This record gives sequence, C-alpha cells and structure tokens, in this order.
Amino acid sequence: MALVKPRTLSGFQELLPGPQRQMEQFLSTLRETYALYGFTPLDTPLLEDSAVLLAKGGGETEKQIYRFQKGDADLALRFDLTVPLAKYVAAHYHELSFPFRRYQIGKVYRGERPQHGRFREFYQADIDVIGDGKLSLLNEAEIPAIICRTFTALGLKRFHVRVNNRKLLSGFYASLGLENRSGEIMRTVDKLEKIGIDKVRAILTEDLEVSAAQAERILDFLSVSGDPGTVLPALAERQGCHVLYDTGLAELDGVVRYLSAFGVPQEQFTVDPSIARGLDYYTGTVYETTLDDHPEIGSVCSGGRYDNLAEYYTDKKLPGVGISIGLTRLFHALGEAGLLNPARAGAPADALVIPMTEDLSQAIAFATLLRQNGVRAQIYAEEKKFKQKLSYASKLGIPYAVFFGEDEAKTGAVTCKDLSNGEQTTLEPAATVYRIKAGLAARDLGTLIVEKETVFVL
Amino acid sequence: MALVKPRTLSGFQELLPGPQRQMEQFLSTLRETYALYGFTPLDTPLLEDSAVLLAKGGGETEKQIYRFQKGDADLALRFDLTVPLAKYVAAHYHELSFPFRRYQIGKVYRGERPQHGRFREFYQADIDVIGDGKLSLLNEAEIPAIICRTFTALGLKRFHVRVNNRKLLSGFYASLGLENRSGEIMRTVDKLEKIGIDKVRAILTEDLEVSAAQAERILDFLSVSGDPGTVLPALAERQGCHVLYDTGLAELDGVVRYLSAFGVPQEQFTVDPSIARGLDYYTGTVYETTLDDHPEIGSVCSGGRYDNLAEYYTDKKLPGVGISIGLTRLFHALGEAGLLNPARAGAPADALVIPMTEDLSQAIAFATLLRQNGVRAQIYAEEKKFKQKLSYASKLGIPYAVFFGEDEAKTGAVTCKDLSNGEQTTLEPAATVYRIKAGLAARDLGTLIVEKETVFVL
Repeated sequence: MALVKPRTLSGFQELLPGPQRQMEQFLSTLRETYALYGFTPLDTPLLEDSAVLLAKGGGETEKQIYRFQKGDADLALRFDLTVPLAKYVAAHYHELSFPFRRYQIGKVYRGERPQHGRFREFYQADIDVIGDGKLSLLNEAEIPAIICRTFTALGLKRFHVRVNNRKLLSGFYASLGLENRSGEIMRTVDKLEKIGIDKVRAILTEDLEVSAAQAERILDFLSVSGDPGTVLPALAERQGCHVLYDTGLAELDGVVRYLSAFGVPQEQFTVDPSIARGLDYYTGTVYETTLDDHPEIGSVCSGGRYDNLAEYYTDKKLPGVGISIGLTRLFHALGEAGLLNPARAGAPADALVIPMTEDLSQAIAFATLLRQNGVRAQIYAEEKKFKQKLSYASKLGIPYAVFFGEDEAKTGAVTCKDLSNGEQTTLEPAATVYRIKAGLAARDLGTLIVEKETVFVL
Repeated sequence: MALVKPRTLSGFQELLPGPQRQMEQFLSTLRETYALYGFTPLDTPLLEDSAVLLAKGGGETEKQIYRFQKGDADLALRFDLTVPLAKYVAAHYHELSFPFRRYQIGKVYRGERPQHGRFREFYQADIDVIGDGKLSLLNEAEIPAIICRTFTALGLKRFHVRVNNRKLLSGFYASLGLENRSGEIMRTVDKLEKIGIDKVRAILTEDLEVSAAQAERILDFLSVSGDPGTVLPALAERQGCHVLYDTGLAELDGVVRYLSAFGVPQEQFTVDPSIARGLDYYTGTVYETTLDDHPEIGSVCSGGRYDNLAEYYTDKKLPGVGISIGLTRLFHALGEAGLLNPARAGAPADALVIPMTEDLSQAIAFATLLRQNGVRAQIYAEEKKFKQKLSYASKLGIPYAVFFGEDEAKTGAVTCKDLSNGEQTTLEPAATVYRIKAGLAARDLGTLIVEKETVFVL
C-alpha cells in the first residue's frame, strides 16, 4: 500500500504534548479571568452562511476568507469572533439581557500569505460588553483592569496598557480643518512606532497633502505620551479646540479616574495619543497592550469602544466595548522570545504506577485510590525492562513512580520514588497518597510566562 | 441599508448563555476526568489537506465531507478525531513516548441530511491509548473504569457499560463456517435492539444465506447477555470451538478480572455478545454505553481496540484502544429528555455590584475586592431605575446584589442582598465578601445530569 505523507497544512499550528499543556493553561487562565468580571462563555459555529458572515463585505478580509459551496449552500469559515457575536446578539436579541457580557475563545481562519509568526488558523480570545441603545462609560474604564489582571495572571509584569480616545483624535484633526482626512491620518500615525517620525511626516505632507505646519502640530500633539498625570494636563491645554475633542478628553478622564479603584497600577498605564487602531468602527476609547521588553511582538491585546455592533443585521443600536487577544500568535511569539516557562509544560500524569508481578490488582487498586484523591495516575503494564519503565516516566516528566513487586504484594505496602531527587519510601497506601499529594502541593512551578531578570550593571 | 437576516446554519448548534454554561461544565468535567487517567490534551487543525484526511477513502464518510479548493489547495474539514490522531502520531512518531495517551475534545463536520437530533457540526470527546508495536490488555481493561467515572462525574447513575470482544465474535462465526460473512453478520446483529430478533433472523437467512440452523445458533449465542458472572461461564462452554474464540474469551476474562480493582461497580457492567460496533477496524474489546431509562438515545460512549491506527501514513504498527463521546448529540438528547439540571445553568456572575451615587469609587473598589477573592462580580452602572437593576440581576440568576448609596458612602459599609431569600445585611466590606463566599460555598446545585427519582408504587 502506498503511504500518504502525514503532513499538516502550512500556517496551521499543531503543538507537541508539552507545549499543548502550556497552551491549555493559557486557555484556562483566560477563561477564569474573564469569568471573574462577569463574562459568560459563548460558542458559535465555525462555519456560517457567507451572506451572513460577509454582510459588511469588502476589504482585505473578503480576499482572505475560506469560502466554498456545498450543495446549494454558500459557506465560509469565520475570520473573527466579532461578526458571529453581532449575528448572535441580533438573532437572540429578545432572549438576552443587556448589557450582555460574553467571552469567546475559538479558532478563526484567514487565508493569508504564510509569513513567519502568522497563522491561517488561530485562536482569538475576545470579551465584549454590548449595551442596548446606551452603554455606561464605566465599561470602557473597566477594560484596562481586565487586561492587567489577565496578563498578570499569565505571569507578565513588564507590560503597558496604552489607551487613547477616538473622539479626542477626530476632534483634534477637525480643529485643524482635516476632518475629511482624519481616517487616513490616523492610519498613518498608527505606524509611528514602526516607521518612525520622519516617514510619518513625509506621508502626511506628500501623500495626504497635509501642510508642513499642520504636520508639525500633529506630531507635536502625538509627542505627549506617558502617565495620565502628565498627559491629561497637556491634553487639557487644547480644550475648547473642538466639541468632539472635549468629549473625548472627558471620556479619557473618566477612564483614568477609577484606575486605582480597579486595581490597575499607575505605572502599567499609558495615555498615548498616537494609538488609533486601524479599524474604522471604533468611536471612543481604544486600547493596545505592549510588552516592555518585546516591542517587536506589537500589541498583544487590542480593542475599543464602538457604536454599532450589528448594524448589518438589525435596526437596534447596539453599542459596545471589547478587546481581543491573538492567542496563537502570542503563544508562538512568547515561545520564540524564550518567555514560556518550561516547568509549566508539566507531565501527562503525576504518578506512574508500575506493576512488577503477574497479578495487577494491587497496582490497579492503588491507581484507583490516587485518582479518587485527585492525583493523575497512569498504570504502565507494558512488557518492558524495569529501566525502560523508569526512563518512560523521566521522558514524560512524571514526578513520581510507584512500584508493586513481590515484597509489596506480601506486605500491602507501596514503594514510591520521587524522580526529581531519587528519594524512595515504602509506606501504607494512604500514607503514600498523602506523600504524593503533599509533594505536588509543595511544588512551585512558577508562572506560565517568565520574564528575564533585569540585570543591573554597576 | 438592507438588513441581512442573522441566521445560523441548520444542523449547527448555537446555545443561549444558560445552556452554554452547562455545556462548558460538561467540557471541563470531561477534561478533568480524562486527565486523572494520564491522558494529555491534544489540539489539531480543523482543516486538513484532503489527500491526508481521506487517505483511507471510500464509504459514506467521503460523501458527507466538507471539501473545497482554495487556490491550489484541496482542503477538507475533519469528520472525526481519529484520522487527525493517526496523522499526528505518524508525523510526530519520534517525538512521542509510547504508550501515547491523549484526549481531544473538538468539533468535527459531517454534511449529513439534517435530521432531528443530528448535527453537521458537533463536538466529539475522544481518548485513545496508542502503543508502539504492542499494547498491554490492561489498557482495554481500564476503559470501562474511565467510562464509569466520566458519567458518574456528570451525575448519571442508571447507565451500563456493555462490553464484547471482536475476536470472540469472529471465532464463533468461523466455527460455524461463516468466516467470509462475519462482517456482514456482525453489522446485522448489531441492530438486534433496534429491529428485533425476527428481522435479524430474516436478514440472516434471506439476505446473507445463513442456514436456519446456523441462524438459530447465532441467536442462541447472542441471547446470553448480562453480568460477567453469568455470561463468562456460558461463553466458556463453547471454548475450543475456534482458536480466535478462545483468545477473545481470554481477553474478555482479562477485562472483567480487574473491574473491582478499577472501582467499576459490577452492576453497571454487562458482557453483551451482540455488540460488534459497525466499523471494521476494531479487533479486540469493544464498548458501548447506554442509559437504562433512555434506550432511544442509543450508545452515548463507544469504542474499542484496533490493531493499526495509522497504516495509511506509516509502516509502523500502532495498535490502540479508544472511546468517543458524541458530546453535542448527548447534550441535546439529555436536554430533550429533561435530564439537564437547570440549577447548573447558573449565572454569569455571583454578585451584581450596583452603584447609586455619582462617585463610583466605592463600588468599583468592592468589585475589585470580590474578584481578588475569586468571586465573579459585575458592576452595573447603567442609567436605569433601581427596580430595573434588580430585575436584571434576577433575570440573569445572579445570587447576590450589592448596593452603594449615600449611606454606604458615609459609613464605608456594604449593603448586600441575597436574591434567593431577600435576606439583606449591611456589613464591613471584608465581612460582606466572607458572607458571599460562605453562601456560595454552601449551595448544593446538584449534579449536571439529574435522573428522575424512581417512584415505587406500593
């Protein structure tokens, strides 16, 4: 029989067991954190009717989409979790209570040209709060706290949540008489960190026909970035330049006001007028999150406030605020930067139970006892040499090996070896369970993400 | 703007928040149970190269598959989790340690004709143990324990794990001189419960050209079904009829021998010679799981032992044993049968924090304190009447409401209402957290699945 090469599609992540266990811990950390803020889990189909999924239509998205016919149906794989949310909220409007707070963690599909660190199938982890007609600014103010708690729970310390307001930006550009070009200007200015100030100035004056004086005022405006205590007073100097500017400034002020009550450390928070987020549909606060030591990764959690979630499906006005983590890309980038804690890859089991006599009852009964006590146990009954059995446990990183030979059969005792230090005990079954549980509980494997220690050169 | 109807494809499950929270608990219960037995989580792409996914080819599967071109690529959505596992193990053979024990819970796709209770996108929850060349019978013996623990953890009591052995069946049919027709006979006999004994006899004698005497011997053989203590001696009477029969009987005996050490209650275990499992590739023990009160649901967890997992991808012989739960279908069927515990639909939050003054600091600080203590909290700052705020909490099933008015601002105390009984306290923040945590811990919501009480009529 001719064999088929068992290959996985390019741009599709498939992890080995160790990294997959780390990934699962990312997923469960996100689920737990989002739940703490009152978000309910949602799960929508990966396949949708193309007419529904592409109701908005146009743009880069449509080119990248996985779309196909099956029978009469025109189907497409979802390319984000926002459109399915819009569909869900519009379809179930009368069954939901607003504000509706949901999280969704799921795979999305984009047939991009394969590039290093880019994926065609990847996890997004989204939260959104959707209001019915109106939505309190408090929901926008809460987002930095959720971002902070999420990344702190993953083990990060050296990161910043960067916030801006689209009304402030639109108002500022309108005050310069540039309201018709403000979308293009924002997209250009968004690239400031990537391409530098000179290129931004060149694009502004050459491509967008902004005058040299206007360009200087824009770059001057963008240069105030940092802690709110410095930035807000600087922004306040322009107060009155435009009504939208004043509204945006008041919102930004509202977001900043409750930071400490929300438990957000001031030093992890930045007001940054250069942030616009590429997408056109944000209308209020916008967010980015960057790792201090890894600017090359870009923003690891972004989002903002929008006015109309589901305008293609319903006449109801559904404003909202949401953020998204590109989890697959983040996980990959953290791995490349050496920030994933290898200890958290763990093992598939806590104890390997090794029977060495023909009758397996004693070994099985002990494995059952371990499991009843919440200890993950595997029985290894394959016909292998003793050394090979131990080597199996070591390769998998299983911390304890438990043996059942002739002696154990006679006495009913259990011999248990801690494979990290070789320490071996022969105790009653219950005492052995206790030893293993205590050992597991005492381990400190550290956080999922480990940042390099800062080295001070004196 | 013309609106697009926000519809979801037929055959694609999309749950409301309450049922989705129940579903999430099914998922986490399965993950936890599988992990206790030393299975490691796996996640593979939903899209694969068609040549890889359909290496085996043929059959009903190919017709049902979602397959399409994108650019030069011929792609298909996975229709089960077994083929991706085979691909994974063959591709990563040198990076894995054997036996390789993995669980995978994920969506699969089959473009079946839509029928009541059948889905085109559905979750499967699989475990498999894969050996390299050989695999100990112990792995087959362990499966009933895993099934029992899984369904017990979900709350089921009235179910049976039914076991048979394909070698026993093949040997028996060979002893009747029917080895060439044993596949067809097994498929027919597998329908015994659905179509009844008379129809099975008719198909055997009329369609499969089995003699009337042979048909009687087959039906006689199948009639012994029940607890191992009765069935095994009855099966032993035919010992020596064929070498395969004897091997199968010895394996069945081996699976039964350690049941009690594995913690499987004898009364939930049945040896049933009529079970064959439709698929051709099982070669040893086979499993089905049925709910005593709901035979109409059919088997809720099935699987078996196979000799060659990945023969289309590698020359390595990779025997294994595995089971699969069709989770979406099970969840749907349990819902229809009224067996899902509504209390476990829960709420998106444990406490709704309601600020009633302009300054939100105190409310926010208390919500932050709740979250730091692991209590899921939502702040409700929308401009609504007090009654509407309480009604929001009730609709969502949130158990506690916490108010921050003028009095609370003056004293720093917290007013907290238990919405289940109206009991209201005004206490220090820390004491209120304690009260809520104690209240939550004291609740017994019951198991995910609730079986109706058996009513004894005296």
